Amino acid sequence: MKVKTTSLAIALALTTVAGGTWAAAKDEPIQALQAAKVTNPAKVELGKKLFFDPRLSKSGFISCNSCHNLSMGGSDNLKTSIGHNWQQGPINAPTVLNSSLAVAQFWDGRAPDLKAQAGGPIANPGEMAFTHELAVDVLQSIPGYVAEFKSVYGSARIDIDKVTDAIAAFEETLVTPNSPFDKWLMGDEKALNARELAGYKLFKDSGCVACHNGPAVGGTSFQKMGIVEPYKAKSPAEGRVAVTGKDEDRFKFKVPTLRNVELTYPYFHDGEAATLEQAVDVMGRLQLGRKYSGEEVGQIVAFLKTLTGDQPLFTVPLLPPSSNSTPRPTPFD
Amino acid sequence: MKVKTTSLAIALALTTVAGGTWAAAKDEPIQALQAAKVTNPAKVELGKKLFFDPRLSKSGFISCNSCHNLSMGGSDNLKTSIGHNWQQGPINAPTVLNSSLAVAQFWDGRAPDLKAQAGGPIANPGEMAFTHELAVDVLQSIPGYVAEFKSVYGSARIDIDKVTDAIAAFEETLVTPNSPFDKWLMGDEKALNARELAGYKLFKDSGCVACHNGPAVGGTSFQKMGIVEPYKAKSPAEGRVAVTGKDEDRFKFKVPTLRNVELTYPYFHDGEAATLEQAVDVMGRLQLGRKYSGEEVGQIVAFLKTLTGDQPLFTVPLLPPSSNSTPRPTPFD
Repeated sequence: MKVKTTSLAIALALTTVAGGTWAAAKDEPIQALQAAKVTNPAKVELGKKLFFDPRLSKSGFISCNSCHNLSMGGSDNLKTSIGHNWQQGPINAPTVLNSSLAVAQFWDGRAPDLKAQAGGPIANPGEMAFTHELAVDVLQSIPGYVAEFKSVYGSARIDIDKVTDAIAAFEETLVTPNSPFDKWLMGDEKALNARELAGYKLFKDSGCVACHNGPAVGGTSFQKMGIVEPYKAKSPAEGRVAVTGKDEDRFKFKVPTLRNVELTYPYFHDGEAATLEQAVDVMGRLQLGRKYSGEEVGQIVAFLKTLTGDQPLFTVPLLPPSSNSTPRPTPFD
Repeated sequence: MKVKTTSLAIALALTTVAGGTWAAAKDEPIQALQAAKVTNPAKVELGKKLFFDPRLSKSGFISCNSCHNLSMGGSDNLKTSIGHNWQQGPINAPTVLNSSLAVAQFWDGRAPDLKAQAGGPIANPGEMAFTHELAVDVLQSIPGYVAEFKSVYGSARIDIDKVTDAIAAFEETLVTPNSPFDKWLMGDEKALNARELAGYKLFKDSGCVACHNGPAVGGTSFQKMGIVEPYKAKSPAEGRVAVTGKDEDRFKFKVPTLRNVELTYPYFHDGEAATLEQAVDVMGRLQLGRKYSGEEVGQIVAFLKTLTGDQPLFTVPLLPPSSNSTPRPTPFD
């Protein structure tokens, strides 16, 4: 289905170019998203199944999609996530959409890439609460998965390396091109209205683009939360220092992507900003020392909503059934 | 997408008839499933979104699809389900697939139809733990839903009656035709092998069809669990007596459909049978007073696996985002 979406995107682009409504791409600090190129559709399909499979959790109830829900902007729209045994997570689940464009994964960047990230929640006692060994045992006992792994990797022996590789391959397809802002970037002057354009100008001129730039409108650096004014947080999360051990990295977090930000509420690493208006106001004051007026906040929010692109469209995966020898989930042990 | 699936089913049927490989339908106690006819695709689409929307729960984490997972045969493959705050449910979640064919809904039949059923889990403190009023308030605050309800029902005022009506309309499409057994029923003699046919003969001759009959291979009556021998259950569920108050209905449960039974493990109202082999053995002894041999169990299981039909194929729904005025989920209150 992803291939279809890609073809559609190309078809649209060709049509529009043929129609002559697009001029050259603009030179801006934000670049248009390119649709994902799928080079190994079988691996992507396997990764999609794994992404949706709750048997990768101890309970048999929590999948990657539980907290990175692709019906909801790749997030769970909760302040912090719900883990095994209804544990309250320590941090807001970042969207999986366009996550392949980030410099590193997790808010503190402790995983260098999507493959390294994918193994984390499976074995985290507060999230899926399983182990890599048990997850692999489950998959190895399911004939449908064994056949697919063999087809994709040339070997019927499943290991966590292949599991996370396939999940990452699926996640790499979760790019959201064709937002109104991207159309404007590509030369379609009618794609944004005057208010949205005013919002983008303000976003640039007042310094937001210093961190929120590039194709993902963020995701490329770690920055301190609370530069001009300190951020008063209830959350104990201290960010990047947990990875580097350097005191200067305390309260530094990965700058989140603003792509699809309309869908990925609530905001910040602790999810404490319920609305985009609150998030813009706090960012202006704490990071830029600027108190935006209500009208200015409205303009920036109008611009931010133009960053919602085509959401990944695919069929709900059908998971291969367990066999008699598949270890059963133990949600209540 | 459902319409597409239906068209495909018709196309396949026509091709095969034209090819002359099918003879007349057989006269058997089990009848072939007919693909669902979608008369109101907009309502089905709205119902699909609601089915997948966790904002119908207090936590914002549990949707209809959490326990009736359409990637897993319309069930959660757990003994009993996980509800709000990780509460252990009292009973095994029945599959939503082909549930429109059942005489009533829930194991004890306390809901006459899918529409009446759909409101139950939303307001059940052990399941989604919300109220109908709060669920409607959430939906009414979401512009995308308001527009869809207006388009489908001619009024922008949402109420629980419309919500459950739309969910039921989606669920009515979740029919799984074209199983190997259905193809055999329609005259394709090659659709079943000798072992599967022997299993079906034994299933008929030893009395299973007395209860497991009709297009859903069950779902049409309430029967006592433990007729010949009592069923020793740890579960406190007493079945139909909770609805009728009649002592004769104690331990009577709705006969489950056996359609897609390969996918809907574990079995029985308490989920205590982990495998089809166990389920067949227990049913034989307790309901029929017959101890099937290992070979007989294997034959019946082989037949049961021919009841897996085409699973519903549709795109993952994209849920309309909450607005600033949408009440936020409260998972940890």
